[in-house]
Amino acid sequence: MDGSRLRDVLAPGIAAGPRAGGLVAALRSAIVEGRVLPGYRLPAERSLAVSLGLSRSTVTAAYDQLRGEGYLISRRGSGTFAALPDTTSGWRPDDAPADAASAPLDLTIAAMPAPPLLAEVAAAAAAALPAYLAGSGLAPAGLAELREVVARRYSERGWPTSANEVLITSGALHAWDLLLRTVARPGAVVAMEQPTYPGVIDAALAHRARIRPVVVDAAGWHPGEAADRPAVLAHLTFDGHNPTGQWAPDAERERVLASFDSSTVVAVDESLLDFRHDAPVTSPAALLGRAGATVVAIGTMSKSFWAGLRVGWIRGPAPLIHAVAATRAGQDLSAPVLEQLIAAGLIGRRSEVLPARRATVAGRRQVLLDALAVHCPAWHADPPAGGLAAWVDLGGGSSSRLADEARHHGVRVTPGPRFTVHGTHDRWVRIPFVLPPQQLEDAIRRLAAAAVDLQPARPRRHAAADKAWTA
Amino acid sequence: MDGSRLRDVLAPGIAAGPRAGGLVAALRSAIVEGRVLPGYRLPAERSLAVSLGLSRSTVTAAYDQLRGEGYLISRRGSGTFAALPDTTSGWRPDDAPADAASAPLDLTIAAMPAPPLLAEVAAAAAAALPAYLAGSGLAPAGLAELREVVARRYSERGWPTSANEVLITSGALHAWDLLLRTVARPGAVVAMEQPTYPGVIDAALAHRARIRPVVVDAAGWHPGEAADRPAVLAHLTFDGHNPTGQWAPDAERERVLASFDSSTVVAVDESLLDFRHDAPVTSPAALLGRAGATVVAIGTMSKSFWAGLRVGWIRGPAPLIHAVAATRAGQDLSAPVLEQLIAAGLIGRRSEVLPARRATVAGRRQVLLDALAVHCPAWHADPPAGGLAAWVDLGGGSSSRLADEARHHGVRVTPGPRFTVHGTHDRWVRIPFVLPPQQLEDAIRRLAAAAVDLQPARPRRHAAADKAWTA
Repeated sequence: MDGSRLRDVLAPGIAAGPRAGGLVAALRSAIVEGRVLPGYRLPAERSLAVSLGLSRSTVTAAYDQLRGEGYLISRRGSGTFAALPDTTSGWRPDDAPADAASAPLDLTIAAMPAPPLLAEVAAAAAAALPAYLAGSGLAPAGLAELREVVARRYSERGWPTSANEVLITSGALHAWDLLLRTVARPGAVVAMEQPTYPGVIDAALAHRARIRPVVVDAAGWHPGEAADRPAVLAHLTFDGHNPTGQWAPDAERERVLASFDSSTVVAVDESLLDFRHDAPVTSPAALLGRAGATVVAIGTMSKSFWAGLRVGWIRGPAPLIHAVAATRAGQDLSAPVLEQLIAAGLIGRRSEVLPARRATVAGRRQVLLDALAVHCPAWHADPPAGGLAAWVDLGGGSSSRLADEARHHGVRVTPGPRFTVHGTHDRWVRIPFVLPPQQLEDAIRRLAAAAVDLQPARPRRHAAADKAWTA
Repeated sequence: MDGSRLRDVLAPGIAAGPRAGGLVAALRSAIVEGRVLPGYRLPAERSLAVSLGLSRSTVTAAYDQLRGEGYLISRRGSGTFAALPDTTSGWRPDDAPADAASAPLDLTIAAMPAPPLLAEVAAAAAAALPAYLAGSGLAPAGLAELREVVARRYSERGWPTSANEVLITSGALHAWDLLLRTVARPGAVVAMEQPTYPGVIDAALAHRARIRPVVVDAAGWHPGEAADRPAVLAHLTFDGHNPTGQWAPDAERERVLASFDSSTVVAVDESLLDFRHDAPVTSPAALLGRAGATVVAIGTMSKSFWAGLRVGWIRGPAPLIHAVAATRAGQDLSAPVLEQLIAAGLIGRRSEVLPARRATVAGRRQVLLDALAVHCPAWHADPPAGGLAAWVDLGGGSSSRLADEARHHGVRVTPGPRFTVHGTHDRWVRIPFVLPPQQLEDAIRRLAAAAVDLQPARPRRHAAADKAWTA
């Protein structure tokens, strides 16, 4: 982030408050909300003063106050850096997976139940299985039949693809993990959106990647200091960004992709492609024919059909697909045959499933927005353009504290910091709209009650057990 | 390896040849066969001379010759180290997965076709699936029903286990990979057998582990310099060791386990537990109640039922299982529901499958041993005590060259070096006995013809494409 973008980030907040107080508030919220990331080196006081049109003493006073609060750290001789005070970066991962049965209303999972057709397709696949039982059942790149079906879908969408450009995985997250393992050595720079899906972060950190953030906010995608930190791999969700629900216009996609050079493998995660709410789905044109980065697509059955299937895929150049297959041979060897037959069957009958599923989701989206307007009038959510969740601005409250309190009201929800590397974005909470309407409205009513109980503020506890489960 | 064990390794070879020539031959073959590993620092010449009862000039002459051949490297001030010359460490991984259809006889896969019962169990599982479709289908530790069934099997075997001590994976290799990811940071010391299953090596190297070898040879398990290099994690296959087919006696197990301290998580891979050929299966008693290492079991459906299922598990202390579940939530999230229902169904009906399967395997083992005796009389294989493959000593030939040549004879086979970290063991080849009898005998006849065609020796090519597929 250069000085002029920092000025853009801070200016509205500064305008709202008097001098040092305005700068303090603007900088503090920029850090807490992830627009200025922990570790970012701030301009020298004199330079920021000139840039913002403030006196140097005003900037000095603001820096002093923020240092006292823990939002800035100064190191002699090296400068002043953004930071999160311990009390704010409160959410910590917890290794204990939650017991789903203990929480009657679950707002941590953004995935739908299976369509009834799945049972029929599974039975047909089981009936077809005997033809496969004479073989070893192993194929690291996937079953030829399914690779063909997946390739055909890309070609139909205008992205010419052959079966040897497709590798079958155990879901979209597994696809991302295999790409990390194939492409990114420990310490490699990996670009990913902030905020993003928690599993994407966890996988990258498990591979000891250094994260280059692509900040996503209401104004769109900010790929940041591209030239400074060439990434070997990037993860982007232009189609129903999780958690914000944005759908990137073509020009935005092209601009973001142009920030990577030809050495970067850019994984475009299309998990939520089938769920655009107010417009037709974007063609892949903006991803194709670029001279720059190698664009790879990730897809999954989880959102369009059922997460309990565990089938996803990678679409990429054949040599990369071969390398990923070799990686997989040293990780989990192969995908299950029957699951792949079911996936092929469901994709072939997608027109029997998706229109009704989209209508269901659209209805529940409206239920959520209406319930929020009624029960949580101080909160704000832009209607999500795509996906299965809304990204709700609590208007100053802490989603970590809300998630803690919500458990006592019989609701589980994933706090905003879980979607970030640095534990920022505590002001937002992701709320999926996949529960049946009455349950969804009940959950929002309980969240609202939890928010009321948070006044006056109590000491935070850890929002335990939300890590393993967010989906 | 201390000096006295080195003496034991070298003595027989030295006795067979005259002075320096005997030592050269003994040391060279110990290195090529993996009994002395590359990087091992040899005793000083004077000290080895005393230990072996040779003159110092004899040892000096032998070291000189082996340095010239590339089997020893001396570094001024730090000593003399075992090494493999480039021409010997011939096998290199290749990223291109093999096309199964192109090789009519495949000796790279040690896995059986599925039993016919699988189709019936799959149909029943598909019929039971509708009860699960209303949920998200996600459970990082596995479906409760299957965890119960797996736990009960351990309890029945005399290893009391509850469901929360079991996590369901996508096979045994995936179990090992998840343990690596949970327990071993990059650079951590991980102990594993040499030779061992290639995927076990690949996974450990993908996690940038430093390998502590537990050499397995005809004399058993040699855990080596335990105190020098405490391992955070170990992989051991006492029950039908892959590739040598050995079955460790209880005393051997206890001795090997005692070489690890309480900080080591020892994964005992029981993938081949159902295939002991000449005696009843060992009870887990030797693994239990030890004060030392944490013993974790790995199991799989792949060998007893079908590799195309992709279901395995880890049995370990509940806190470790929780930690692995959290790891999995950042890798591939969860196992497929239907596969887990099938696995539970098959385990419940194992008595309908396993006796016939064991009889089939025993018959094919005999077919292989007979075919080797007829067609390859110069080769030697101890009848494997367990598992689905024999470890065949070519009596001086190179398995890498044999595997190359075999492709021209319509047979694929995995050369010995693929089962080692350092590319040693070129003198052995692993031959599975899972093909139907006629095909198996035909494959051995072709291997024998390939061996004949290798005389006189031609330059080696890479045994490409065997990496992704060995199972």
